[in-house]
Amino acid sequence: MTGESEIIERYFRQGFADRRGVRTGIGDDGAVLRAPVGANEIVVSCDTLVDGVHFPKQDGGRHAADLGYRCLAVNLSDLAAMGAEPLWFTLALTLPSVDEDWLEAFSSGLRECAVEANIALVGGDTCRGPLACTIQVIGSVPPGQALLRSGAAVGDAIYVSGDLGAAAAWIQGLESAEPALGLAGLEARFWRPAAQLALGKGLRTLASAAIDISDGLIRDLARLLRASRLGARLRLEDLPLCETLRKFADREQTIKMAACAGDDYQLCFTIADDKQQELERLASELDIRLTRIGLTTTGENIDIFYHDRPVSLEHTGFDHFAG
Amino acid sequence: MTGESEIIERYFRQGFADRRGVRTGIGDDGAVLRAPVGANEIVVSCDTLVDGVHFPKQDGGRHAADLGYRCLAVNLSDLAAMGAEPLWFTLALTLPSVDEDWLEAFSSGLRECAVEANIALVGGDTCRGPLACTIQVIGSVPPGQALLRSGAAVGDAIYVSGDLGAAAAWIQGLESAEPALGLAGLEARFWRPAAQLALGKGLRTLASAAIDISDGLIRDLARLLRASRLGARLRLEDLPLCETLRKFADREQTIKMAACAGDDYQLCFTIADDKQQELERLASELDIRLTRIGLTTTGENIDIFYHDRPVSLEHTGFDHFAG
Repeated sequence: MTGESEIIERYFRQGFADRRGVRTGIGDDGAVLRAPVGANEIVVSCDTLVDGVHFPKQDGGRHAADLGYRCLAVNLSDLAAMGAEPLWFTLALTLPSVDEDWLEAFSSGLRECAVEANIALVGGDTCRGPLACTIQVIGSVPPGQALLRSGAAVGDAIYVSGDLGAAAAWIQGLESAEPALGLAGLEARFWRPAAQLALGKGLRTLASAAIDISDGLIRDLARLLRASRLGARLRLEDLPLCETLRKFADREQTIKMAACAGDDYQLCFTIADDKQQELERLASELDIRLTRIGLTTTGENIDIFYHDRPVSLEHTGFDHFAG
Repeated sequence: MTGESEIIERYFRQGFADRRGVRTGIGDDGAVLRAPVGANEIVVSCDTLVDGVHFPKQDGGRHAADLGYRCLAVNLSDLAAMGAEPLWFTLALTLPSVDEDWLEAFSSGLRECAVEANIALVGGDTCRGPLACTIQVIGSVPPGQALLRSGAAVGDAIYVSGDLGAAAAWIQGLESAEPALGLAGLEARFWRPAAQLALGKGLRTLASAAIDISDGLIRDLARLLRASRLGARLRLEDLPLCETLRKFADREQTIKMAACAGDDYQLCFTIADDKQQELERLASELDIRLTRIGLTTTGENIDIFYHDRPVSLEHTGFDHFAG
């Protein structure tokens, strides 16, 4: 195998979801696309994943397929948090060398995620350098229905989807000295996060604000609150904890990990009191666990309680450049 | 300075071109955008630039502003080659460390290019890792008017814009043992390529096919011809050569560099005989040099002549993974 175009032809041309509206896909200077009729607002987002930073340093490609899946899934999570429907994505892949087995596996995982979410690969760039993958996703929302971080009102209930801490548990298990912690079941929670696209779509007309939890609940909730110029009261005992995580760590560690660790890609959102019945219907329709964990308040602080006792959590979470 | 959001706030929030249609820009999970009325086809493209691969290894940030400019300019060149008007872009920036001087310079160069092209920065991602920059651009074209690689017909004239070889001359001068070759004037040609946006727009209804020259004229023309299932006859003596390059190298080297070296970001396009008068008008209106260098033919080969004598050029150009 020789060139860039062969890599594209062999691994990235086919088997990704087809979408209407792709006039010209991969293979020209740019893709020519037409948004669905009526959905005249588009949503774009991009994320880079770097070897050894966003995922454990690749060792011989054991997780290449997982990595392909994850690179797209974390971007889809941003579309979910906006209430957007996935349409198209581009892939910028930087590779240290051409490893056909790795490319085969990576593209198969990427393809799997793309087909599940019905999003079409429409372009990209491949070059040589330290392993990294930047994906840009484009989605659509009905006019005015995008879920923003800035829409929360005082007294809105704060919810999270699913449970928290699974991805962090796997990462920390990895990094700990004990190898056999029974974390195998958590591996997929890290590598193949399920972007909450159906939930995001369902929340368009229900939630007042939303964000996805990539860097930890507290940190991401703080971002939502900052955008809405609000504070919050949280009840830690209500956090939906990953069951495996509870076996692996003590209660304090477990709660701290659920509150502060990242990579869960669940949604955190706010909703007015009078819409909570509709929310329950949505949750049961989608068979998704939704947990009320607190309330928005005036002010700028997140006041955290554990069984009515105020507690202090370091608002760590993940920041690439935190001092 | 501590975190990611501060980097965004300080260096990337303001001063980039404003565009109508940006409902929600930087600072949410995604940007919410509305394409201009009537321009219901959008064009997307992305390119990654990696330190030491796409530009000389950064030494103390002497070229940080240039790099910011170049990262966007090479992407705009893809929009130009599609005949698209720039609308919005996202930036994924991977940095080894937080160097405020570097960020200040990089963002100023990026901003300069964005303002010139009237394209708005709407989102992005910043993380730690080996220096690399992926930009995704989104533009619009009137329905059906995108310039594709695949539209050329037999007997169309082949043109290139501007002159060729300047960027390569600077790169090669850099790499050669002779430091004082008078290449200062060429530096900007490498670092600040002028995306041919006005030309691309003007060619929408004139050219039958177009591509931008990033990896060398011969290699990029071959891509256009492959997409159009055609061959070509080229006259090397007609190539528009960079004047400084002619002083720096002998005639054979000069022509070879103009034909095979990359980074010029001029447009190469094909046009039917009966539209060449209109093309001349466009060239004089835009004050752009357009040079006819050959003709499309049936078959699959590019036959290259120098004063009617067939010559063989290795079709080198740049491929990241060529063996």
